Amino acid sequence: MTPIEFAESKQDEFLNELLDFLRIPSISTDKESAPDVRRAADWLVSHLKGIGLKTVELHETGGHPIVYAEHLEAPGKPTVLLYGHYDVQPPDPLELWESPPFEPVVKDGKIFARGATDDKGQSFAHVKGLEAHLKATGTLPVNVKILIEGEEEVGSVHLDPWVEANREKLSCDAVLISDSSMYARGLPAIMYSLRGLAYFEIEIEGADHDLHSGLFGGAIPNPINELGRLIASFHDEKGHIAIPGFYDAVRELSQEERDGFAALPFDESEFVGSTGATAGKGEAGFTSLERVWARPTLDFNGIIGGFTGEGAKTVLPSKVRAKFSCRLVPDQTPKAIEELVAAHIRQTVHPSLKVKIEFHHGGRPVMTERDHFAVNSAMGALKKAWGVDPVFIRGGGSIPVVATFSDVLKVPTVLIGLGLNDDRLHSPNEKFDLENFFNGIKTSVYLWDELAQS
Amino acid sequence: MTPIEFAESKQDEFLNELLDFLRIPSISTDKESAPDVRRAADWLVSHLKGIGLKTVELHETGGHPIVYAEHLEAPGKPTVLLYGHYDVQPPDPLELWESPPFEPVVKDGKIFARGATDDKGQSFAHVKGLEAHLKATGTLPVNVKILIEGEEEVGSVHLDPWVEANREKLSCDAVLISDSSMYARGLPAIMYSLRGLAYFEIEIEGADHDLHSGLFGGAIPNPINELGRLIASFHDEKGHIAIPGFYDAVRELSQEERDGFAALPFDESEFVGSTGATAGKGEAGFTSLERVWARPTLDFNGIIGGFTGEGAKTVLPSKVRAKFSCRLVPDQTPKAIEELVAAHIRQTVHPSLKVKIEFHHGGRPVMTERDHFAVNSAMGALKKAWGVDPVFIRGGGSIPVVATFSDVLKVPTVLIGLGLNDDRLHSPNEKFDLENFFNGIKTSVYLWDELAQS
Ligand SMILES: [Zn+2]
Ligand SMILES: [Zn+2]
Repeated sequence: MTPIEFAESKQDEFLNELLDFLRIPSISTDKESAPDVRRAADWLVSHLKGIGLKTVELHETGGHPIVYAEHLEAPGKPTVLLYGHYDVQPPDPLELWESPPFEPVVKDGKIFARGATDDKGQSFAHVKGLEAHLKATGTLPVNVKILIEGEEEVGSVHLDPWVEANREKLSCDAVLISDSSMYARGLPAIMYSLRGLAYFEIEIEGADHDLHSGLFGGAIPNPINELGRLIASFHDEKGHIAIPGFYDAVRELSQEERDGFAALPFDESEFVGSTGATAGKGEAGFTSLERVWARPTLDFNGIIGGFTGEGAKTVLPSKVRAKFSCRLVPDQTPKAIEELVAAHIRQTVHPSLKVKIEFHHGGRPVMTERDHFAVNSAMGALKKAWGVDPVFIRGGGSIPVVATFSDVLKVPTVLIGLGLNDDRLHSPNEKFDLENFFNGIKTSVYLWDELAQS
Repeated sequence: MTPIEFAESKQDEFLNELLDFLRIPSISTDKESAPDVRRAADWLVSHLKGIGLKTVELHETGGHPIVYAEHLEAPGKPTVLLYGHYDVQPPDPLELWESPPFEPVVKDGKIFARGATDDKGQSFAHVKGLEAHLKATGTLPVNVKILIEGEEEVGSVHLDPWVEANREKLSCDAVLISDSSMYARGLPAIMYSLRGLAYFEIEIEGADHDLHSGLFGGAIPNPINELGRLIASFHDEKGHIAIPGFYDAVRELSQEERDGFAALPFDESEFVGSTGATAGKGEAGFTSLERVWARPTLDFNGIIGGFTGEGAKTVLPSKVRAKFSCRLVPDQTPKAIEELVAAHIRQTVHPSLKVKIEFHHGGRPVMTERDHFAVNSAMGALKKAWGVDPVFIRGGGSIPVVATFSDVLKVPTVLIGLGLNDDRLHSPNEKFDLENFFNGIKTSVYLWDELAQS
């Protein structure tokens, strides 16, 4: 029996095992759930041992444990690190679930449960892909390391230092993650780039206490008026960011990328309509997909100052605080952008006002070259499993762990989303289509072979 | 004995009466103090009867009562309406008072108590001025109406309808108010103009729910970014308000006014320093006094939107709300300014965002001509009482009741501040200098004669 035949013959068992895994309420944000989070880790350890991986370990982190495994029996072949997470989001609001979040049900060809797609289902598909090889052939065609953490939904707080401390142990040629979505139903995709982030907090102060606008208004600086001036100065009329040097490190989209994105099925009015906005708005000369995937931004995230209660109070406020952040694209770095933005702020704000700038934790944008061997392998595996040509996509958000792997392990990450955009991750009635689970397992089976042949 | 001799002979008794008045904790904001507020009104009614006024009435309003009196025994002479308030601010924070707020003490030539200057002391000085005439001559040289309300510190909520309903009863040639300050110690002043107000609340909405800035940032409008653009559009580089038509109705300062203001003792660095601001900032071409007294403004009062908690959250906010207000100068009207500002907003905000504009209650700016007979009389009385030439000043804030008298009774108001800028009204250790109380009484005694001769 080939690995793919094995996988096809075991679908019912694999599904039941996933349902068992989903029954463990491993909510990492919830302190009371800590024993359940550990139970999920233990379940995974014994499961990984059961499928025949050589080494399986549970690592304490100070928070929820990391499950680590490896099977390095293919000398001369590439080494791939598979990353996933076994923790899940809280299920609130509970009353909106049609069936209890931790009592998985299969209905209309979908598995309904918290964690079904994010990320128990997706990472379990790879575990089953590995099992198919191990059971059918007694080994794996490539060297595999597996890292499944329990704190992704709480910001992977202990992961970075653990990766740093285990740099040698984790050394590999590429990282593989399935914790996102295909481009659309039936249309698999490789995500080869993610945006980074630089996050700022700013406080502008005029008077050192709130003043009466009748007694002082017009003669003493108003920090909200001034912050408005600053906000306006960040963009020009065409939606370009007007900070000197801001675009210097931006890798412009290639014609191939633009053509590829333009060819994707994309309904602009559906995209805008899903947000409830009247119309899209952004940098002139770029499509919505290009704006979100491949252009840097500067968006205010929050603002507060002065009198915000009911009714009218004629206060000339002392200060205003705001948070804003730049989504970055390759090859911008948070550090360089922080410096440019801070210099622009200092230059723009009138000297009669005091300015404090704070830098929150940012993240580097990442890009995996589209001709990397692991990308080629993933494209091949997806095509075999789904029977269609996969597409290249980028991501507008950040996956911090990808930047960590890039920074610490110096290897690219290949993102193979096995979910769908309507999977309702982080929301009630999260689901994972059976088709995606089973084709995900097939993808994984093919992938290890493709990697071995690359 | 002349009225002025009578007043001088009775200083001790007048002081003791004021201390009695100050002992009544007539805190209008505090529901539990309602019986004390009424006790103050009753005390005033019996006191006004006691000094010999013809008619003294207590009027129910639905809130705290209005004390009204009149003495109309000078046919052919002007009729003057004296306005004051017998309610006081809450005394909090109590622990900062050096002596209990409602146990008045006289120390270092000053009366310390809540309400000492605002407005029991100042209005009582006029009551004593009237008493001096009534006791010394048996009558008053002019026709006098007295309106002392109990809700000034809660926005005079029942006064406007009462004035409307008693338009005939209150008809007069001028209104007189002492509820403010002299320009400086020893330098009496007539305030002949107050700024008005137009108060706005605005909400700008992009998406109809908060979005993830990674998935949508750059392609969907950001309401805070857009509000910043709007805020910036309200002023030009020189601090002028850049709304078309905004200055059309502004009565420009006369050279006489500018010269007068420039001659006033005014320490710019003290003015700015008292606010804690690094430097003043305002409309180019005007001094701080001119900016505050005679130029319209547009100041943001408060703003809130998006994520305002601790730390960083990469939200693309759905909406932002802000309050802002224009101080108006003669002959601007709130209605016209509301229309101009709203038109500018609708023209400026990008059509991809929804805008809601709300108008809060505003107030008309007021100006009393400097050659009005009541102004001349007040100048004369102040000069006699204080022995120096009084100065003309304007006020940057609003006194809503002045606009009411102007709108409903169609008469000008003369503002004769008897307090000092360091009287700490609305703060702990409020005080009223004995010199100001006694010279205030003298001012009042002279004033009724001056008005009779005008
Ligand atoms: Zn996830
Ligand atoms: Zn007052």
